[in-house]
This record gives sequence, C-alpha cells and structure tokens, in this order.
Amino acid sequence: MKHPTKARASAGATVGNVICGFDILGLALDNSDNSLGDIVEVTRRPSPGITIKRVHSSDSGIPTDPENNVAGVAARAVLERANATTAGLEIEIWKGLPLSGGMGGSSASSVAAAIATNSLLDSNLSRQELMLCALQGENLATGSMHPDNVAPALYGGIVLIRPEDSTNPLPLPVPKGMSLALIHPKLKLDTKSMRDILPTHITLDQATAQSADASSFVLSLFEENWDLLKKVLVDRIAEPTRKQFIPGLDRVRSAALKSGALGAGISGAGPSIFALCKDQADANLAGQNMKRIFQEIDVGADLYVRPIAQTGAGAQLLEVS
Amino acid sequence: MKHPTKARASAGATVGNVICGFDILGLALDNSDNSLGDIVEVTRRPSPGITIKRVHSSDSGIPTDPENNVAGVAARAVLERANATTAGLEIEIWKGLPLSGGMGGSSASSVAAAIATNSLLDSNLSRQELMLCALQGENLATGSMHPDNVAPALYGGIVLIRPEDSTNPLPLPVPKGMSLALIHPKLKLDTKSMRDILPTHITLDQATAQSADASSFVLSLFEENWDLLKKVLVDRIAEPTRKQFIPGLDRVRSAALKSGALGAGISGAGPSIFALCKDQADANLAGQNMKRIFQEIDVGADLYVRPIAQTGAGAQLLEVS
Repeated sequence: MKHPTKARASAGATVGNVICGFDILGLALDNSDNSLGDIVEVTRRPSPGITIKRVHSSDSGIPTDPENNVAGVAARAVLERANATTAGLEIEIWKGLPLSGGMGGSSASSVAAAIATNSLLDSNLSRQELMLCALQGENLATGSMHPDNVAPALYGGIVLIRPEDSTNPLPLPVPKGMSLALIHPKLKLDTKSMRDILPTHITLDQATAQSADASSFVLSLFEENWDLLKKVLVDRIAEPTRKQFIPGLDRVRSAALKSGALGAGISGAGPSIFALCKDQADANLAGQNMKRIFQEIDVGADLYVRPIAQTGAGAQLLEVS
Repeated sequence: MKHPTKARASAGATVGNVICGFDILGLALDNSDNSLGDIVEVTRRPSPGITIKRVHSSDSGIPTDPENNVAGVAARAVLERANATTAGLEIEIWKGLPLSGGMGGSSASSVAAAIATNSLLDSNLSRQELMLCALQGENLATGSMHPDNVAPALYGGIVLIRPEDSTNPLPLPVPKGMSLALIHPKLKLDTKSMRDILPTHITLDQATAQSADASSFVLSLFEENWDLLKKVLVDRIAEPTRKQFIPGLDRVRSAALKSGALGAGISGAGPSIFALCKDQADANLAGQNMKRIFQEIDVGADLYVRPIAQTGAGAQLLEVS
C-alpha cells in the first residue's frame, strides 16, 4: 500500500469562554463551506524535519519558523506521538481567521495541522490524542493548554469542558437554528496578556452565581428555554477585567440585545464580540446593529453570521492524495 | 362559605449543597408516607397573635416562642402577606427531622407552616410567595435566606437555584429509581457557625472546576450518565472547611463508594452525610456500610434510605377542616 504524500484539513472559527462559561464552554461556528476557518496542507518531503512553506494571510507577522508556528508545533506533536520524528513535512497554511482575534485562529490552525499530519502518516491517532497535539499548538499561542477553542474546533457543536478531564469534552445539545453574530473589531489583543489580567481569586458569591448560570445554560439548551438563556448569559469573571480593552463593548451588546439576541459577550480573550441568537434572522439583525456601533466609534470591524456547527461537524479532512 | 378552622401540612427531608452544587443544588427525599418529615398543624384562635401550642420532638430545646420558632416566623410571614395580621393562630408541630442535622429540618417546618397557614386563611398565596415566607423561617434558623432546602421541600425533586432569582427554582430531571442513603450521626453542628467558616474567596481554578462539575451534573441527569455523575460529585468549596467537624467523613464516603454509590458528601451544613445512588438496592447497601463505619468509631447514627422525591412531589397539605 502506498502512503499518501499530501493531506489537507480545515478547522473553523470557535468561541471560547461562552459568557457564563469561563474556560469551560466553547462552541464552533458552521464552517461546512470552509469560508470561516483555516486550511492546513501537509506534504511529505524526503529530508527529516518540518518546514513551513508558506502562510497565506492578510495578517503579516505569522512566524514561519516551525517551532514558533502553531501548525508546526501541532504537526511536531503528531510526529512524536506517532513515533515518526524522522519524517519530513512541508506545511502550507491558508489563514481564514485573524490573528489574536478571539475567534480561535490558533486552535483552528493547530487542529487542522494535527488532522492533516495524522492522515499523511496513516498514524491513526485517536481524537483524544489529536486534541493533545493541537493543545500544544494552542499553548504556543496562548501560553495555556485551555481547550475551550481546540475542543469545539475538533468536535463541532457546543462543548462543556471539565478542566480535570479536558481531553474528553462533553457535547451539549445544539438547538436547531441557533446562530451567532460574531464581530471582529480591528484591535489587536494578545491572549497571553489577557490571561495575565484575570483575577486569581473571586468571591464565593461570584463563584456560586456563575456556577448556577453555567448549570442553567446547560439546562436551557436541553429545554430550548430562551427566557432562561437570556438571564444566564452573564460574565462575572473575565469581562470585568477585559472590557477596558474593548471600546464599545457595552453599546455593542446593548445593540445586539435590542435586536433580539439572547446575550452577547467577549469571544475568547477578545477583541471579538459575539451575540448568541435563537435563529439566523435574529443573528443577521444583531450583527448589522453591532457593526453600526463600531462604525460610530470609528473602529473597523468584520462581521460574520453563522449557525452554530452541529455536534460532530468540527474539523474536516479535505483531501488525502 | 365557612372558613376552615384547622389545616395540617407536611414537608420532608431535603439535602442542600449537593456536593458539586454549593448553595445552588437541592433535592428532596421521598416523603409520600410522611415518615421522614415535619408536620405542622395550624388552628384558628379567637384572639389575635400566634402561639406555639406544642412541639413534639425527640430533640429538646426547640423554642416555643413564636418569634424564635421557624414555623411561627413562617406563619407570621404568611399572615403579613395575606394582610391578616389580626388573625389568631395556634401551631402544633411534630418534628420528624432532627435539629441542626443537615436534613433540612428548619426548612421542612417553615414550608409546612407556610402551607398550612395559607390554607387556613384561604389566602391563595402563590408558590413563590410561600417560598418567601418559608425563607423567613429558614433565615431565623440559619442566618441566611439560602433556598437550597426550602425549594426542594416545597417543590420536590432535584432543583437548581440561581441566587439572583432564588424564588424560581429550576426543576432538573430525576432519573427513575435514583435514591439516597442519608446517615445522621448524633453530632450537633450549628448551621450559622458552619456558614461562618466558609471561605470568602476561592481561586479562579477552583471556581472554574466547580462550575464545570455543577454544569456536568445537570448534563448527567438529562442523559442518565452515571459514569459522568461519579466524576463530578466533588465538593471543592464547603467540604474542605467543614469536614474537620465530621469525624469519619472520608471513611464513610469510601464505604459508600465501595458499595456502588455514585458519590457521597455532606448534606447541607452537616453533620449528616448522604450517598447518591442509581437505585434503592445500591442505597441500601451503601447505607448499611456507612452506618458500620460510624459504629466502628463509636458515633451513634440514624440511617434513612429513600428514593428522591419526584418533581412536584414536595410538601403536602394533609387536612383542612
């Protein structure tokens, strides 16, 4: 049997820290048409080692040193797990997601690289192992192994992550039609710094209220209880310290809520803001009104409106040849 | 139409702080045969004011001053809400639940008194209003209005409580057959003091892990996912400070887990310990083995094994005449 010489995979945009679910909830935006994600192609080369052939991106400054590129690091992790460290790989990356945007760009590249490399090598790593490899890429970008973007990028849907068992994300129900308006203002925030400003302790009352809201979020998805969902989409943990870096956040949220959104908040570590909506019509309206606020305060912003990816509709292997 | 002159109601044992759900999860033990709860009878008297006629209890020291008795306080709250403060009431109480046992005894008396008084007066208060009245009784006993015992005593089942909307407890699914072994060691702990020793702050990591586990608890009930339930029944908040007052806790839990229990922990503020089990057979076995540990360390203990009350099977009005 001939081994493949080339494999290409894609992974889409994700939202981490879903408002009431700091570090424990993540969700994937529909990327079935590959219009909102990263694509990574991995090609075999005769001489050992990993090289980054090219990064196609509207952002400059994405490292092409494989040790400093999340796709390179994730591919390296697959080689190590597959006992194939003598293999030679060349990686080409098409970045559909912005750098440091809060849209899970580093996770998407890491996941796509892990999947493509696994296919190229015929190494049959499990999903759990691929997740661990992708988390090494994520760690390079963010300084932590938090899987709230990697897990939904890999698995699709809405996932609940127990920090103590983080490679076994728990799929939650995705109400039919539930959609997001995600707006990415042209501000650069560094995820590592945004982690550094988080509080190390919170009050017992804050913790209790947040835990009740995260638990109620799960309940509301099972019951498609929109009234409850509206009440629980509150972030007591990350937003109070991070909002100072995202001008217009309160006004943007207010515009989203007035347009019928269930809730809105910072996506990941920001600066992107997302509004969670019960259907795509609400998401379209919320998105337009969110974008108008950024125009009013003279901040350029890209808007994306997508359904939430269904459970299982995560990263895709696009081609193996 | 003649107004009633006597009304009698019962409310059963409850567990608050259900391990991973400090202050936000509560559950009711089946009390359909009135064998594990408090009964409160309220009789009209011609002269205004509330008197406590008698308290039947194996515990001495239950106050008969109506201002210092939880049933008296809850009945007073109903009179005030019903604009009937000139009514005369005589209250008789049969305590089936121990004082300061961690079995929701003060909530049971408060809830039963509120229901009986409401019926006696034909005042048609809503469940929410009755809950507020019962919480005033609870506040007398515990120094706080936390509803994690009052809510399940009133509504039955397993409830999730958002502190910001605490009079609207959210019913969770009760897997068929799910049962509890609850063991009450003969140690007296004061709920107020047990609240005072709680930490005021917890680390962000603790809060995140606890929130993930409470959320996963909800998920596991919907999916009847016992493996997940076993993992998430961990208390990072109350148990570390309270366990010093409950000798044998670790050994008792270990005995329960070895008997097939899904998890075990302190009921409410203690000293009772409960084991959550997927069926009554497991609960019987766990209960016997938990009791044996207390015998070995020479602490007298009463054991109760009951199914969880179904949703809606909370407090009952027993008689109106």
